[in-house]
Amino acid sequence: MKYFAAPLEKLVEQFESLPGIGHKTAQRLAFFVISQPEEKAQAFASAILDAKKSIHTCKTCCNLTEDELCPICSDTKRDTTTVCVVSDPKDLIAIERTHEYNGLYHVLHGVISPLSNVGPDQLRINELLQRVRNGGISEIIMATNPDPEGDTTAMFLSRLLEPFEVKVTRLAYGIPVGGHLEFSDQVTLTRALEGRRPL
Amino acid sequence: MKYFAAPLEKLVEQFESLPGIGHKTAQRLAFFVISQPEEKAQAFASAILDAKKSIHTCKTCCNLTEDELCPICSDTKRDTTTVCVVSDPKDLIAIERTHEYNGLYHVLHGVISPLSNVGPDQLRINELLQRVRNGGISEIIMATNPDPEGDTTAMFLSRLLEPFEVKVTRLAYGIPVGGHLEFSDQVTLTRALEGRRPL
Repeated sequence: MKYFAAPLEKLVEQFESLPGIGHKTAQRLAFFVISQPEEKAQAFASAILDAKKSIHTCKTCCNLTEDELCPICSDTKRDTTTVCVVSDPKDLIAIERTHEYNGLYHVLHGVISPLSNVGPDQLRINELLQRVRNGGISEIIMATNPDPEGDTTAMFLSRLLEPFEVKVTRLAYGIPVGGHLEFSDQVTLTRALEGRRPL
Repeated sequence: MKYFAAPLEKLVEQFESLPGIGHKTAQRLAFFVISQPEEKAQAFASAILDAKKSIHTCKTCCNLTEDELCPICSDTKRDTTTVCVVSDPKDLIAIERTHEYNGLYHVLHGVISPLSNVGPDQLRINELLQRVRNGGISEIIMATNPDPEGDTTAMFLSRLLEPFEVKVTRLAYGIPVGGHLEFSDQVTLTRALEGRRPL
């Protein structure tokens, strides 16, 4: 027997299809939406449609934007000779928050992951190569995550970029600030030792 | 500086307004919705609107339904002399899942909670009294949660129902099946002792 009316059941299913949302949470969210006034439900629905309709990838860096170029690519004050390659728009935001980087970005929208059937063709690699071919780029910083898939992707890209006259760098590995040596894993500690710098 | 385009930011805000969804999760969900094909986003948006539009409370028991009467109230095989009072439609479902109860329900849509500014007037108490006044009900089972607010609500209702010729009962307190005496709290154990029954 269905315990809920069909439209409610459908809304629960929709919430359940989101990543990290289980059945109980989906129920809770659906009930909450139902309990809200009509305008709120309408605002939610139109936010979904608006975002889906107006958001697309930047022509240059593949970041998400509602214009042809994203705010970073269209900012004339940024250093156009450096490109930081990230796998996800959220990583771009993490780097922007440091206020330490003034170059441009390139968003791959994923990493090479044979286990999830993601090959280089599904990533925005051709767009990156085209930017390098167009010239004007002197350094590419690989800022994919420091995990096997991120490392593989960075390695793969650096091979592809070998024929071009461009410096390819990788974010430093090491102990996070505020971290404890005692609780650091062996690999991180090994990398921190390897990457040691004169004081 | 805004890191996201405005429509995306709005969608993140919408997700963030849901209970138990923080900023990071809201971002993750919004990005997921954006990454889905157009039809999926549309299905999500219309599920919200449909549910909000078509779901309302049952004329008799205040359960959520898309018809005038909920499936339980319109089921002629159910025992109409017993009414189980729950605070939330989800509690009704929990009881239905036992397949042990064949009576009707009454959904209060909340419990009396002075701390959250919820008084008896905000609950569907008048509807319950009207059902009792209409006659034909011999027992009312208080199935609010066994916490201070649920207990208060059950107590308050039982006082209100005193003038009527109706038996008012409360769900049994005790050790949950599969539980351990060792890990039971004192109050539960006291209630389990008080409620002991001949074997």
